Amino acid sequence: MVAIQDIEAAYVRLKPVVHKTPLLSSRTFDIRTGNEVLFKAENFQRVGAFKIRGAYNKISTLSKDERTRGVVTHSSGNHAQGVALAAQLLGVKAVVVMPKIAPQIKVDATRGYGAEVVFCEDSSEDRERAARQLVQQHGYTLVPPFDDEQIIAGAGTAMLEVAQEVKSLDYFFCPIGGGGLISGNAIAAKHFFPSIKVVGVETEPANDCYQTFRQKRIVRIDPPNTIADGMRTQSIGQRNFEIIMKYVDDVITVTDEQVIETMKFFLERMKIVVEPTGAVASAAMYYNILNLKQKKVCTMISGGNVAPDLLKRIL
Amino acid sequence: MVAIQDIEAAYVRLKPVVHKTPLLSSRTFDIRTGNEVLFKAENFQRVGAFKIRGAYNKISTLSKDERTRGVVTHSSGNHAQGVALAAQLLGVKAVVVMPKIAPQIKVDATRGYGAEVVFCEDSSEDRERAARQLVQQHGYTLVPPFDDEQIIAGAGTAMLEVAQEVKSLDYFFCPIGGGGLISGNAIAAKHFFPSIKVVGVETEPANDCYQTFRQKRIVRIDPPNTIADGMRTQSIGQRNFEIIMKYVDDVITVTDEQVIETMKFFLERMKIVVEPTGAVASAAMYYNILNLKQKKVCTMISGGNVAPDLLKRIL
Repeated sequence: MVAIQDIEAAYVRLKPVVHKTPLLSSRTFDIRTGNEVLFKAENFQRVGAFKIRGAYNKISTLSKDERTRGVVTHSSGNHAQGVALAAQLLGVKAVVVMPKIAPQIKVDATRGYGAEVVFCEDSSEDRERAARQLVQQHGYTLVPPFDDEQIIAGAGTAMLEVAQEVKSLDYFFCPIGGGGLISGNAIAAKHFFPSIKVVGVETEPANDCYQTFRQKRIVRIDPPNTIADGMRTQSIGQRNFEIIMKYVDDVITVTDEQVIETMKFFLERMKIVVEPTGAVASAAMYYNILNLKQKKVCTMISGGNVAPDLLKRIL
Repeated sequence: MVAIQDIEAAYVRLKPVVHKTPLLSSRTFDIRTGNEVLFKAENFQRVGAFKIRGAYNKISTLSKDERTRGVVTHSSGNHAQGVALAAQLLGVKAVVVMPKIAPQIKVDATRGYGAEVVFCEDSSEDRERAARQLVQQHGYTLVPPFDDEQIIAGAGTAMLEVAQEVKSLDYFFCPIGGGGLISGNAIAAKHFFPSIKVVGVETEPANDCYQTFRQKRIVRIDPPNTIADGMRTQSIGQRNFEIIMKYVDDVITVTDEQVIETMKFFLERMKIVVEPTGAVASAAMYYNILNLKQKKVCTMISGGNVAPDLLKRIL
């Protein structure tokens, strides 16, 4: 299992490369909920999301031989751009498998970071098969999105930055897609703030980890229809499961509507652009699902990459 | 004329009250223009714009008697909210004259900060007359939006914060509406960075100060039709004129279209919401109007209050 030392080692690798993202606050938000909330703003991270942390940590810990051969991943979201930029910074070839129907803007962004894009049909199976084929044919190393120790350790460096700025915290709220982000950050949070409560948040349609947490076994759901596109994963990974069962205190859900209202608050009052998945953890505080009072809380804003059309619809 | 000591005195008053706003940067922006640009992010200021700085400084320097009687202003923009919040924080009654047709959202925001809203017909003359009447009837003190020494000194505290973080600067770009923001910041900029060039920026339709600067006399234009609503003032003030002629090196213009593209860059790449007027100075760098190379530049983002409908149209 990932240890705090792995996260500290990742931090040393990442420090010269990633942004130390700010901890934001809002009087209006605090007055509304009756708590003191700090937002870890990974929407200001390079590539617009936390994903560069895990991807860079993973690729920089590959052997020289693996780095010479290159890496591959299958994603049309933030992970693709994280891998593309991390590989470019480390001088490693990156291939990203994307469905033919991926939006041109995402294809361009991934190519903009120097990655090669390979197209496939549009199902998880097709994408995984295409990636596996590339691994076999070219000896590329697969960079998985969340079920990987170095990915988890890299993601956890965000909480290490929080701990540099904050002396105490009562609660940490974190979104859960595949579970990579919460895994790394829960380990770090419990290390730096031993009495902290770590709460995972999903949207109701994407409640696989909510079920997993209660049934104490990995529950797989049908591809959920939710505004939080980073939560369209059908289940968390094995390593993520083990860490979440050990370090996470609760998993709760919010509605898509609550996520939209929270995004609006971020835009209109705090002047920041947050993607739907990035607003999920804060929505749990905006609607104070746990009825907290006078607690010091950190919520994770995981990213800010919203398609202009979606932003328009939300407004 | 306002001196650096006035700005330093204002800073002492403001420090416990206003946010020290961050200096943001963007690799993508820097690569595009070939310069190093720092954005002073007053869109993250309280009330979403720099206006709280001048308003709070002005009201806190009124006599006890004046404060007991209360203050009045006429504005439907950021200045109204700056005055309302500053008065609330100082326990002073505030009355804001607004045209009957002001959007409900602005009326609500101003009332939300505890100010009384008085409605009038929709012309500058009507608004000024209504405010003057209130001054005569109730002994309120008028808090002018830009042509006032304490308003100018308060606005200039933004550059004092910049100078705490940055050792050298080659250029400072600042938007010009009535001239309050650039007046205070130009004085501070020339004090802390003696060889700096201070450049004022307007949109082409709102080019009254561009003309003023060249004709060396205050030029008044018809109410301009520009996306930058903070620049719909028809001329700068007398005090602002004197300071601008002494401390500003050039006044240039950008098009409304350039402002819109710069707002989009802020939204899509930097994940921040900037209002049109707030994007004007940065637009001059985004399109590198002065053809600068390898300069260290600060641009002022004056505010982030955009109506959701306008934001939608821009996207």
